[in-house]
Amino acid sequence: MVAPWEVKAASKRAKLAASISKEYMIPEHDLPPADRLDVSQAPKELLSKEVIEITELTATEIVDAIAKGKYSAVEVTTAFIKRAVLAHQLLNVFTEFFPEIALKRATELDEYYKSTGKTIGPIHGLPISLKDQFRVKGVETCMGYVSWITNEPEKENSTIVDLLLNAGAVFFVKTNIPTSLMAAESRNCVFGQTVNAYNRTLAPGGSSGGEGAIVSMRGATIGIGTDIGGSIRIPSSFSGVYGLRPSHERFPYLKVANSLEFNEAIVSVDGPLAVSLPDLTLFSKALLAQEPWKHDPRVLALPFKDYEIPPRPLVFAIESNDGLVTPHPPVLRAIKIVTEALKDAGHEVFEFKPYKPDEGWNVVLRAFTVDGGENIQGDLDKSGEPGIPDIQMFIKGFKALTMSELFMFNKDKLEYKTAFLEYMNGVRSPSGKKIDAWIRPTTVSASVPAGQLKIRYLGYTALLNLLDYTSVVIPVTKADPAIDVATPAPGHGLFKEIEQKLWEDYVPEGFTNGPVGIQVIGGRLEEERMLAVAGVVDAALKA
Amino acid sequence: MVAPWEVKAASKRAKLAASISKEYMIPEHDLPPADRLDVSQAPKELLSKEVIEITELTATEIVDAIAKGKYSAVEVTTAFIKRAVLAHQLLNVFTEFFPEIALKRATELDEYYKSTGKTIGPIHGLPISLKDQFRVKGVETCMGYVSWITNEPEKENSTIVDLLLNAGAVFFVKTNIPTSLMAAESRNCVFGQTVNAYNRTLAPGGSSGGEGAIVSMRGATIGIGTDIGGSIRIPSSFSGVYGLRPSHERFPYLKVANSLEFNEAIVSVDGPLAVSLPDLTLFSKALLAQEPWKHDPRVLALPFKDYEIPPRPLVFAIESNDGLVTPHPPVLRAIKIVTEALKDAGHEVFEFKPYKPDEGWNVVLRAFTVDGGENIQGDLDKSGEPGIPDIQMFIKGFKALTMSELFMFNKDKLEYKTAFLEYMNGVRSPSGKKIDAWIRPTTVSASVPAGQLKIRYLGYTALLNLLDYTSVVIPVTKADPAIDVATPAPGHGLFKEIEQKLWEDYVPEGFTNGPVGIQVIGGRLEEERMLAVAGVVDAALKA
Repeated sequence: MVAPWEVKAASKRAKLAASISKEYMIPEHDLPPADRLDVSQAPKELLSKEVIEITELTATEIVDAIAKGKYSAVEVTTAFIKRAVLAHQLLNVFTEFFPEIALKRATELDEYYKSTGKTIGPIHGLPISLKDQFRVKGVETCMGYVSWITNEPEKENSTIVDLLLNAGAVFFVKTNIPTSLMAAESRNCVFGQTVNAYNRTLAPGGSSGGEGAIVSMRGATIGIGTDIGGSIRIPSSFSGVYGLRPSHERFPYLKVANSLEFNEAIVSVDGPLAVSLPDLTLFSKALLAQEPWKHDPRVLALPFKDYEIPPRPLVFAIESNDGLVTPHPPVLRAIKIVTEALKDAGHEVFEFKPYKPDEGWNVVLRAFTVDGGENIQGDLDKSGEPGIPDIQMFIKGFKALTMSELFMFNKDKLEYKTAFLEYMNGVRSPSGKKIDAWIRPTTVSASVPAGQLKIRYLGYTALLNLLDYTSVVIPVTKADPAIDVATPAPGHGLFKEIEQKLWEDYVPEGFTNGPVGIQVIGGRLEEERMLAVAGVVDAALKA
Repeated sequence: MVAPWEVKAASKRAKLAASISKEYMIPEHDLPPADRLDVSQAPKELLSKEVIEITELTATEIVDAIAKGKYSAVEVTTAFIKRAVLAHQLLNVFTEFFPEIALKRATELDEYYKSTGKTIGPIHGLPISLKDQFRVKGVETCMGYVSWITNEPEKENSTIVDLLLNAGAVFFVKTNIPTSLMAAESRNCVFGQTVNAYNRTLAPGGSSGGEGAIVSMRGATIGIGTDIGGSIRIPSSFSGVYGLRPSHERFPYLKVANSLEFNEAIVSVDGPLAVSLPDLTLFSKALLAQEPWKHDPRVLALPFKDYEIPPRPLVFAIESNDGLVTPHPPVLRAIKIVTEALKDAGHEVFEFKPYKPDEGWNVVLRAFTVDGGENIQGDLDKSGEPGIPDIQMFIKGFKALTMSELFMFNKDKLEYKTAFLEYMNGVRSPSGKKIDAWIRPTTVSASVPAGQLKIRYLGYTALLNLLDYTSVVIPVTKADPAIDVATPAPGHGLFKEIEQKLWEDYVPEGFTNGPVGIQVIGGRLEEERMLAVAGVVDAALKA
């Protein structure tokens, strides 16, 4: 017998399918066969010349072209609708699709431009994709929870949606996530598994995996994700795109859906994924120009301030291994590529170890589970759905803390952050200089086989959530079985059991073409500076 | 039989008494008689000309005089030691007294100055008083808890102490507080009751009441308090001095003692009380020049930035009554004085009501008691001391929240703060202008009779802790039974029962000479701007 929750989920899927008009779809028989794994170039084979021309531009180029009258907002929106639908056909990306709302909005923007000769804001006419957490008036938000399926469209936008609309954005789609958001995957009982454009047996990462997938296919040039342990950065790395995890209190998170929205032990932030680094800056600048601190009381009144890179070699502390879990060969190679590129560009580079990452990781795990998983379990129990196995560690085996235990947790958290800060104060390069950035892997692996529970350790991203440091992910390379050969686990890591399993997972052919991105990291609230420094790294990689 | 806790407390008091050498004391028979209530001018009658000359200066004048070689740090420190000891003799202010540490420090500063011709920092040689929460190497921290008496001197300074030492401060004394800090009074089972310089039957306020008392007597020009519900501002108001409650994340709170140090539901901040407004600025600038964000991970990297008052009339939203509890006649008169002074100075002034302060007050009360009083009760139970009746409301009748209840509390808190922010966005003066400051009473009363449980409502200060707004207290007037006549409770307030009791308390003679200060309030992290705007208000009052 089919369980009631399955019926409800199937009906939601049918509703999504019905929202995608045939006019936007590529006929089934023209699509690449299921056994073609790398579909990243398929759009260029299947879409019209005009759609390709528009969608191959960066966001920065698009808003410039619209402002100059080269394209209308409707043309641009239509092009991205088509490319996004193809991405969905190939990768299973969408949770909500609302082209009518988008085209109505684009038409209004075009009318405004026609009648005034002006744009309404710095991202006038730019289609932006949204993780399913973000609320859009007239659209549902079920977040992959069966129990959240109500068929009730939202009456209010998330604050960030409102502000980006003021700046000129067009919203047209929301994308897939893992049940509860507490996994670096993107699958759930409602919408199923999203896969990777570079190898459809691989995961796009998560929890903002739908965003990684759609941006990697250029179904949008910018997508908005959220990140509490790596959920913007892992899909950026796994999907070969750029991503920014800003510090808490910089971007507005008001009215963004989340089972753990009010867990202040560790705080989720929202931020962009994009096809280029300047697009991350375009987004941040456009958003902050809307003065989000006037709407979300948590946001600091810090306007975007352009940062000038100093005219000297920069100094990079590069970490290839956190000493807990040694990354896979493709990741170690990515770190080598970055190191060489920066050296070649004349920068100072040295090997770096962060302060006691094992203590940090333990604090993070406690932070994720202060409620003993009650809130997530509650959202599952309401429908009887099983959720996904990926999140079992966050809902089983932990007890909710008492308030006095939470105070003790807060103490341990503060002590670790304080010790880390003092440690960073003392870091100097071999030539005695302060560092401009800390570079570390994003994850231990290139994009992993989808749905196989192969994401075993999130310490490389989650430590930075704990510290609330700014992190920019830039793509570096893709796993290549011919180069990235398997070896036994190096056994360096303190977390020997995890490292052992992880290296057993590493069958090079299984990771073929899986993207690898690295993190360029600065202190708290250093978004402008780190976007600029990441630009130096990106330029060195492209040189 | 005397309880063991009483023996322990008495022994601590004896130790304090023994630390005060006769050379610094005024002989008992020369002191004003116990029935002389106003002792604010006693120092000028009893101290030497040189001591008076130095201690009547502001902090700003003192550091300038030391930098110019007019006084040595030892001379200044000795003068304040003498005046502070007299304050203690008259008002019972000290918890720890350590002139040897201070004079050794002052001597080192003088040697540095002599050998280099330079000061070590912007507050070189300035004696600063500390609330008993602050840790000083070689000095104990018992915070008025019998169970905390260990006779173990601290091995580390609080971070703010370290940084102010770098800037040139001299520490010589710590002062009294209420048991647990959760009262606007200053009495406990170890050190007893501190009283008010302007009327020794009145309270100096609290919880930083010892700081209010010592600064009002100019036993120090600057003292450091903390504030989670009004604990800097109420003693500033009750003691007739200036006070700054900065926003959270501006000044370092690391290694500051507190039973509720790790309650993040509402957060205590530290800040200065001073004899003048420029001294609050001197303190803030000197502290931020030490880059506290390099030591306390909670502090934002925001250097002090001088704020220029715009060359136009300012706009003030003035609140005489929050609609919950109508303040006593002296407070209503203080608000009138401020209103008239600002009008006379050409500024725009209008009557203002904040957004649903009753909802705000309820959130604050829940925030104070998320642990059901367990942590405070625990610190009492360890010794068996009864604590003080003032804090019963925070340790009885509340149950510790579960984690999911805390999440719901966090939700309610965020919703209130968001609604308040949106409300403030819309505030305009009758002439259509945005406001430069919001002015409201600090408390419902002038300084109240000491130890009588007459502080019935803290909404005028605590609302701003919830909102994390910047608030500067400036002294306005003193209660005068000839002008501030008693009337029946006006019955305007929503909290009728509290208002009724409060107005029954108002026997004008009992409040004679009790100081009244008002709050000049701006948004979050607006310390520089609000110190400047408070300067405009202070100048208008003095005109």
